[in-house]
Amino acid sequence: MAEIGPNTRLRTSPFYEATLNEGVTAFSPYNRMLMPVSYGDPMAEYDRLMHGVSMWDVAVQRQVQIEGPDAARLAQILSVRDLSGCFPGQGKYVPMCDHRGVLINDPVVLKIADDLFWLSIADNNMLMWARGIAAERGLNVKVSEPDIAPLAVQGPKAEDVVASIFGDWVRTIKFFWFADAQIDGIPVKIARSGFSKQGGFELYLTDGRRGVDLWNIIREAGQPWGIGPGNPNPIERIESGLLSYGGDTDDMTNPFEVRLDKYVDLDLEDDVIGIKALRRIHADGPARHQLGVKLDDWSTQTGHATWCDVLVDGKKVGSMTNGGWSPQLHAVIGFVLVSRSVQIGDKVEVVRNGEPVPGTICDLPFV
Amino acid sequence: MAEIGPNTRLRTSPFYEATLNEGVTAFSPYNRMLMPVSYGDPMAEYDRLMHGVSMWDVAVQRQVQIEGPDAARLAQILSVRDLSGCFPGQGKYVPMCDHRGVLINDPVVLKIADDLFWLSIADNNMLMWARGIAAERGLNVKVSEPDIAPLAVQGPKAEDVVASIFGDWVRTIKFFWFADAQIDGIPVKIARSGFSKQGGFELYLTDGRRGVDLWNIIREAGQPWGIGPGNPNPIERIESGLLSYGGDTDDMTNPFEVRLDKYVDLDLEDDVIGIKALRRIHADGPARHQLGVKLDDWSTQTGHATWCDVLVDGKKVGSMTNGGWSPQLHAVIGFVLVSRSVQIGDKVEVVRNGEPVPGTICDLPFV
Repeated sequence: MAEIGPNTRLRTSPFYEATLNEGVTAFSPYNRMLMPVSYGDPMAEYDRLMHGVSMWDVAVQRQVQIEGPDAARLAQILSVRDLSGCFPGQGKYVPMCDHRGVLINDPVVLKIADDLFWLSIADNNMLMWARGIAAERGLNVKVSEPDIAPLAVQGPKAEDVVASIFGDWVRTIKFFWFADAQIDGIPVKIARSGFSKQGGFELYLTDGRRGVDLWNIIREAGQPWGIGPGNPNPIERIESGLLSYGGDTDDMTNPFEVRLDKYVDLDLEDDVIGIKALRRIHADGPARHQLGVKLDDWSTQTGHATWCDVLVDGKKVGSMTNGGWSPQLHAVIGFVLVSRSVQIGDKVEVVRNGEPVPGTICDLPFV
Repeated sequence: MAEIGPNTRLRTSPFYEATLNEGVTAFSPYNRMLMPVSYGDPMAEYDRLMHGVSMWDVAVQRQVQIEGPDAARLAQILSVRDLSGCFPGQGKYVPMCDHRGVLINDPVVLKIADDLFWLSIADNNMLMWARGIAAERGLNVKVSEPDIAPLAVQGPKAEDVVASIFGDWVRTIKFFWFADAQIDGIPVKIARSGFSKQGGFELYLTDGRRGVDLWNIIREAGQPWGIGPGNPNPIERIESGLLSYGGDTDDMTNPFEVRLDKYVDLDLEDDVIGIKALRRIHADGPARHQLGVKLDDWSTQTGHATWCDVLVDGKKVGSMTNGGWSPQLHAVIGFVLVSRSVQIGDKVEVVRNGEPVPGTICDLPFV
């Protein structure tokens, strides 16, 4: 396997030294930063997330900050979901599209104040995009990437760990809401969110110099619950039906194809980027849809697979975007992005390394 | 060292299998692809480039294709260099800026036809940018990323190798011009260009299925000249004074700060993105400038260094953006991006891993 390390176009996170201490074994680039993607024991990492508590360096979720008199206007122009009902202290999961109605990101939008928003982004240059649109539209905003680094604490014991540090009040934080807190002089925003369905929080560190300190505080506090390092889990999120922007989407994917219908408000103003295209797509019906696949056998090929051809009667009908072994289902499962002619219950073949493996299309989520 | 490999957000190049066969040892992500950055013997790779011939997988230089009635208009709107004198078959090195006049890319723009352009881009999502601007301005163009993968042949013997394959006519191709060719049914455009000052060509492969075939043809033909694998060389390009967008630039860098004045045409129309900001910056003078630094000693620390603080009298005046050991100069050299108060001949300190190393500011290029 080839090597990767920090370089001139790959920034390290405030938690980088801490993750090295934890024995990180692989990184993936994400938003021009190094994202830990393995600590060498996938099953232990999965088990902690499912039954205990796991801590993740997700500083790669960069914050695009929009502030100024037109901040709310720009946030809405970028979002195909209605943000008008969002309160300060509340976050919302939001599809963002280009003018074709194609997904270019799916951040959590955090409304810090009426004139201050953070977009907690997936892997794409939304800073440049937001600045460009603001300038083209002549909006009075400042768009920046402040020194903010999320650290996720996920799993059924996450609430106990975070409460043991910050107090029992954190148990009252509602899903996607957030609040200010401090520990040992380290400023954070605590949000009930995270890229898993096992519950937990994301701590938005707002002083990058204190990354290792924050990591160690959580690590120490989590010992009674067996905390350990992890990362957005490649199989738990498939079991749970969570979309990975850029992982399960391509350069043509619209929100309707990947089960985001309920986050699209077609009656938004025409100046929202992509909304006119989405109305057309909605009227016509999208060309593809995202479903699950359960493979009959994968005996000769283990490990995670991405973008494998899906065949019906030997003809390509789409791709398995991501798939792997599911401990819960005791089977290889995956997301497929396939022609709408493919339906639940259909028999397909998924091709990996030239080898077709039979499987059955199923509904999502898996669990 | 941690590992990297293909994943759901990291595409492989058409030359990927060939680079594995050559023994690639490290990749860097670039435009969401894996770019080979080492074959394990940096001095041999440098030596081939300087005295022989080297072949590079630079498929990461993605082509943003702009076609249609407004293609020339969009290409100019994105470019702060005047493209009006560019002929079909000609390329130009072009700074592209955002509305603040900040560099967001520095592609070679290839004019294929009056209504068809390729931007051979550095590491940033210019596909999304070009599409967004086209839509905001209501231009009649189609913007896409076609199946095109450049393979660079660089070094003093590159012309002999390429001529031995395609014929002596390639010797007549002028700098940054290109022409269609074919070998063994593999279609390419041959451009006299490349990210080194040692001369050579970039072969734009236009059928990704033939990547390994093309690689092997060049490899075979280059044997008499001792060809071997390499990549954009981290020290040759510093010796030669070549800018790396994203490597030597940050989120505030304008073209005047990094010696690109001659590629900026301030009398372009106001609708060119960034041109109004650049006129203001030019009138005021940029805040920083790019110069060289030659270090007195680096005995305790070898290897390439990026974004090291540069101090004068203990006070930070900028950064050494990239630096390393120069075989030609027998010294550690680097690019600095520093306050304009810093001048050629000034004594500075460059801090790496907490250790200040004395050095002297010098002019560019080094050789």
